[in-house]
Amino acid sequence: MTPAAALERTLHDEIPLSQAMGIRVAGFDGTSLRMTAPVAPNINHQSTAFGGSLYSLSVLCGWGLLHLKLAEARLHKHIVIQDADIRYLLPVDQDMNAECNVDEVKLKNFLRALEKHGRARLSLDVVIKHGDQVAVEFSGRYVVHG
Amino acid sequence: MTPAAALERTLHDEIPLSQAMGIRVAGFDGTSLRMTAPVAPNINHQSTAFGGSLYSLSVLCGWGLLHLKLAEARLHKHIVIQDADIRYLLPVDQDMNAECNVDEVKLKNFLRALEKHGRARLSLDVVIKHGDQVAVEFSGRYVVHG
Repeated sequence: MTPAAALERTLHDEIPLSQAMGIRVAGFDGTSLRMTAPVAPNINHQSTAFGGSLYSLSVLCGWGLLHLKLAEARLHKHIVIQDADIRYLLPVDQDMNAECNVDEVKLKNFLRALEKHGRARLSLDVVIKHGDQVAVEFSGRYVVHG
Repeated sequence: MTPAAALERTLHDEIPLSQAMGIRVAGFDGTSLRMTAPVAPNINHQSTAFGGSLYSLSVLCGWGLLHLKLAEARLHKHIVIQDADIRYLLPVDQDMNAECNVDEVKLKNFLRALEKHGRARLSLDVVIKHGDQVAVEFSGRYVVHG
């Protein structure tokens, strides 16, 4: 099983709402994680994606990337979202496509802090695109501890 | 049907994820709206409420209060979330109880601006409590237009 497939199974097993939302892990290339969800189970009163679904997909995309990078480093830690902000720029009326990239230098510093203190924080940005345009900007601060 | 019961039906009909989450409208006294959801369908990998569910309940609690106040004013408008931030202070391992209060002066100014311009913004704060303690602080900015 690829890391992306294993992540998808973990999400569906441990966070049932991710299954209700139809979230799929679309790809992971080592620094970038893409996750997707269809709009139908996430529809709102305006026939576009519900703001809570766009947030949930974003927070899981950041969580998933951190989960995969910790697994690569053979670190088995808890990842908790501490705070986040989100901006809705455009309505989304088709598949929600989220992407999270991690900066390698920032990640190295984070892993060094985690090794030293047993606990560290990392901020991750996620975007959801509608076609070629950014529809949602999310930024979340995650805490990782033993 | 009470305004609270009508709101619950609207949410379940128009935002199916609110039904998957088991969201209920617990009470509305004219200035304060309380909404609740059980933890089971919203569980995460740590057996506490998923951060995306806590956000979704919060954003709907603010949306619901605005919906009820606009209905009282006989205004039929679209309510859209524009941006939001959330802080997770404590994990929640029992029913999620959200509450949103609106300041009457702020609401009056908002309704006046809406009448004048056909469009206005309102920021609303929502808290989710765990027992007597604040577990989640949410602040969302909603745009209302015709």
